[in-house]
Amino acid sequence: MDPDPRTKTLDPAGAAGATYAAQAPALAAGLRPGAEGLNIPELVCPGCVQRCPQTCARKTAEIVAAGADRVSASERLTAVEQTIAPLIDHTLLRPEATRAEVEKLCGQARQFGFASVCVNPAWVSLCANLLAGSAVKVCTVVGFPLGATLSDVKRAETELAVKLGAAEIDMVIAVGALRGGELDWVYQDIRAVVDAAHRGGAIVKVIIEAALLEDYQKAQACALAKMAGAEFVKTSTGFGPSGASSGDVALMRRVVGSAMGVKAAGGIRSFEDVKQMTAAGATRIGASASVKILEEARGRGAASP
Amino acid sequence: MDPDPRTKTLDPAGAAGATYAAQAPALAAGLRPGAEGLNIPELVCPGCVQRCPQTCARKTAEIVAAGADRVSASERLTAVEQTIAPLIDHTLLRPEATRAEVEKLCGQARQFGFASVCVNPAWVSLCANLLAGSAVKVCTVVGFPLGATLSDVKRAETELAVKLGAAEIDMVIAVGALRGGELDWVYQDIRAVVDAAHRGGAIVKVIIEAALLEDYQKAQACALAKMAGAEFVKTSTGFGPSGASSGDVALMRRVVGSAMGVKAAGGIRSFEDVKQMTAAGATRIGASASVKILEEARGRGAASP
Repeated sequence: MDPDPRTKTLDPAGAAGATYAAQAPALAAGLRPGAEGLNIPELVCPGCVQRCPQTCARKTAEIVAAGADRVSASERLTAVEQTIAPLIDHTLLRPEATRAEVEKLCGQARQFGFASVCVNPAWVSLCANLLAGSAVKVCTVVGFPLGATLSDVKRAETELAVKLGAAEIDMVIAVGALRGGELDWVYQDIRAVVDAAHRGGAIVKVIIEAALLEDYQKAQACALAKMAGAEFVKTSTGFGPSGASSGDVALMRRVVGSAMGVKAAGGIRSFEDVKQMTAAGATRIGASASVKILEEARGRGAASP
Repeated sequence: MDPDPRTKTLDPAGAAGATYAAQAPALAAGLRPGAEGLNIPELVCPGCVQRCPQTCARKTAEIVAAGADRVSASERLTAVEQTIAPLIDHTLLRPEATRAEVEKLCGQARQFGFASVCVNPAWVSLCANLLAGSAVKVCTVVGFPLGATLSDVKRAETELAVKLGAAEIDMVIAVGALRGGELDWVYQDIRAVVDAAHRGGAIVKVIIEAALLEDYQKAQACALAKMAGAEFVKTSTGFGPSGASSGDVALMRRVVGSAMGVKAAGGIRSFEDVKQMTAAGATRIGASASVKILEEARGRGAASP
């Protein structure tokens, strides 16, 4: 009946427009012209402002419980301009970055309220000092960007980074092991980092480097990350052959479900990119062009009614 | 008197053709048409075959002691075809490489007699097992390829890799620290790896990632590597903006002198490339296309008289 296995029909009676899609384009395709939001009569609250994915956790949970693995909303319904900064890991991972550049990054993160600064381990201590007392977290990378070091080294890197002040650990999986079908290796490798991070109160984002994987391998990696207790899966290092794609984000979201985060990173340079990624299911964005993205978002907000 | 500070005149009397150049082109320019080798009458041995840089350590040492910081030779004098394999670190650092690919790499290294296999730390143990009893060493990478992790992590990675069978450690310097002028950081970081490697009987190649540095910074990095007791300096990771250049190799050789090795790596794909690098002063080559390079070298050998 439904040619796209990613979509699920909420209303068993098949009411027009009652299709909740895994992806925004599919949602749009399933609605009547001009329709927006979750406009099914029997589910509409009095005084509905058509923003329940943004404003009503209960209603959204009901929809998810009924079988949707994604709720989405049109651009008009998604007021990301006001809420975009806390989605972004303000990122500086270039190896040649200097202390002065890292200091500037931290200043911007404080000013704009980004979720975190994402830096190489060598700078964790500096960032933790500069961001003390702010809501901005220190995120760092482990086994980065190749993911091909030993699990014990990833564990040690995690322990030390957490000790120095990192609250979020973005680790790279053993990509070659995954491609070779050595799934237990991949799982144990993630687990080593997750356990070390959790002992120190930090969360873990598992970078699958999607550009190096087949779709079934991306799904395997996400499943292993979930099994290992990580908080997020993340598309890319930014050093691979290509960065985040909305297709990969949607695939990863389908695999991990709603209880985990999905971070899109790599090549996200505009507000348009951010909207694409969040529409596909991303709940965190890694970007170096974060300040420019915010400026673009504000420009759009000022131009709209 | 000498417009090029890289060239030095060996003969104080200024005998024609007695210029020893830091670089092959300068050497060629300083010789009379048709001249080859170190053809200075008073230095020519009976039965001279014009191959002293290849065959006579004493004569070469005399020349270096007299002030030359490089002795070079024309293509005809440099019979690298027979000796090229032991110069090459047969390299596979792609993150997506699988066990099967690493096994193939080791088989080729045994067959052709490369100096080492250069692999990511996750594969050291496998390679050490596969190459046991052969002359091929296991080389691995530390803090790779960004060099921006903590010194304690680089130290731990080195210790573990050596324990698992690595005899050569190619470590990446703290590039950002160097660019920010934090030279003590860079020195201590190299020193941590050198000490750990030497304790386990391994040697260290210090990757300066030349493409990210100004010339004076390349010189600083090489001087710090020498001070820290490393055995080699190395041009590039192969993951930076560009790989080895003969100009960088020559600069690095000038800074470290004759007592250290210089490894050229990154983008070396042909026998021509290898000849350029060795002519400029490289004593080790990192390459993934090593088998193709050997085939090219053999083809040349077969075609020449």
